[in-house]
Amino acid sequence: MKIDLAVVLVSGGMDSCVTAAIAAQKYELAFLHLNYGQKTERRELKSFQDIAKFFNATKKLVVDARFFTEIGGSSLTDDSIPVSQADIDSKEIPSSYVPFRNANILAIATSYAEVIGAVKIFIGAVEEDSSGYPDCRADFYEAFNRVIDIGTKPATKIVIETPLINLKKSEIIKKGIELGAPLQLSWSCYQSEDLACGVCDSCALRLRGFKSAGIEDPIKYKIRPVY
Amino acid sequence: MKIDLAVVLVSGGMDSCVTAAIAAQKYELAFLHLNYGQKTERRELKSFQDIAKFFNATKKLVVDARFFTEIGGSSLTDDSIPVSQADIDSKEIPSSYVPFRNANILAIATSYAEVIGAVKIFIGAVEEDSSGYPDCRADFYEAFNRVIDIGTKPATKIVIETPLINLKKSEIIKKGIELGAPLQLSWSCYQSEDLACGVCDSCALRLRGFKSAGIEDPIKYKIRPVY
Repeated sequence: MKIDLAVVLVSGGMDSCVTAAIAAQKYELAFLHLNYGQKTERRELKSFQDIAKFFNATKKLVVDARFFTEIGGSSLTDDSIPVSQADIDSKEIPSSYVPFRNANILAIATSYAEVIGAVKIFIGAVEEDSSGYPDCRADFYEAFNRVIDIGTKPATKIVIETPLINLKKSEIIKKGIELGAPLQLSWSCYQSEDLACGVCDSCALRLRGFKSAGIEDPIKYKIRPVY
Repeated sequence: MKIDLAVVLVSGGMDSCVTAAIAAQKYELAFLHLNYGQKTERRELKSFQDIAKFFNATKKLVVDARFFTEIGGSSLTDDSIPVSQADIDSKEIPSSYVPFRNANILAIATSYAEVIGAVKIFIGAVEEDSSGYPDCRADFYEAFNRVIDIGTKPATKIVIETPLINLKKSEIIKKGIELGAPLQLSWSCYQSEDLACGVCDSCALRLRGFKSAGIEDPIKYKIRPVY
């Protein structure tokens, strides 16, 4: 029986690494990565390639989406805005929010999926325990599925899957370990490319997740605060 | 009173030229153009700049979205697929269809609008009398407005406006002339950059529109068939 093809959005971070492990249980994988001008792109791309190799992805595409740096408005892509230190219990949207980034990512993924004939788009978005980005919520993905249904060819059937959407970071880590996901190959830090900084939002969420899962994070940190 | 800012998607074609004239009646204009690797990009960009100058656009942004050429799947961006000759009464989706292109365009426009504080996104999409692209229908834009509402910051209010969606080409031309839109500066041909080819889908729709409006098209053609 022919196995269906799924596009998996792989930033190189822990969530996308676990998402790939989930997709790999049922689908042939087409790995998609976006270079949107983020400060740690070189390091993220290395993780993307390492994880793609680990999972034997049939197809790989790295998309140049650096127009985000021209649009600006985020500390991740705009050098005039500093990456803020973690304040993971704040209800404010952090400066690392890239305006409407996930809609851009999904639009690119849908174009790619339609051309290669994939039936799913896997994305490791997390609503619970996330940084509060408005485009990481379950109803955002539901609304986008409707746009895909209307906006693609009648014969095209593509559905976004968000297997982590309701999980906590600690649950994602446990799930990853249960499935044998190569977490040691993933990269989460928003700020550094050699050793993870340990203090940005993304490092903080990762470290807190490992702590609460009772597992040691296999990657190295410059400093490793206890969150 | 401060005038609100509107992002206007300006390909350089006739529809976007008329859309800009409509937006200019009420808004300060931020012109946005996408280079998505289309064969006639150089000529379209000239029209974009000419039309921006005509309307005195406050802001201008040209986005490099050439990832479409990597994704492929359309005669407009993929050199292995020829641009087909016009068959404007066919119910088939033509080879010039760029998979899910308008969703990508709207996602970029929304990111831009959120950063610059615009309240509207004007796009010259046409449902009636169009080439049958699935992402040119009114319900596609309604669904996308829902995605914007959910996926942007709570304080952000951005709405897509499609003032041409229910017009025929001939009505768009009449509207443009009524508003003094510079149709002589616009470019529609999918295939040529010096003289319009007269035979691609886009030339055919344009010529048929002018004929049915009883007006002479001010641009020059290599050949000018009667549609």
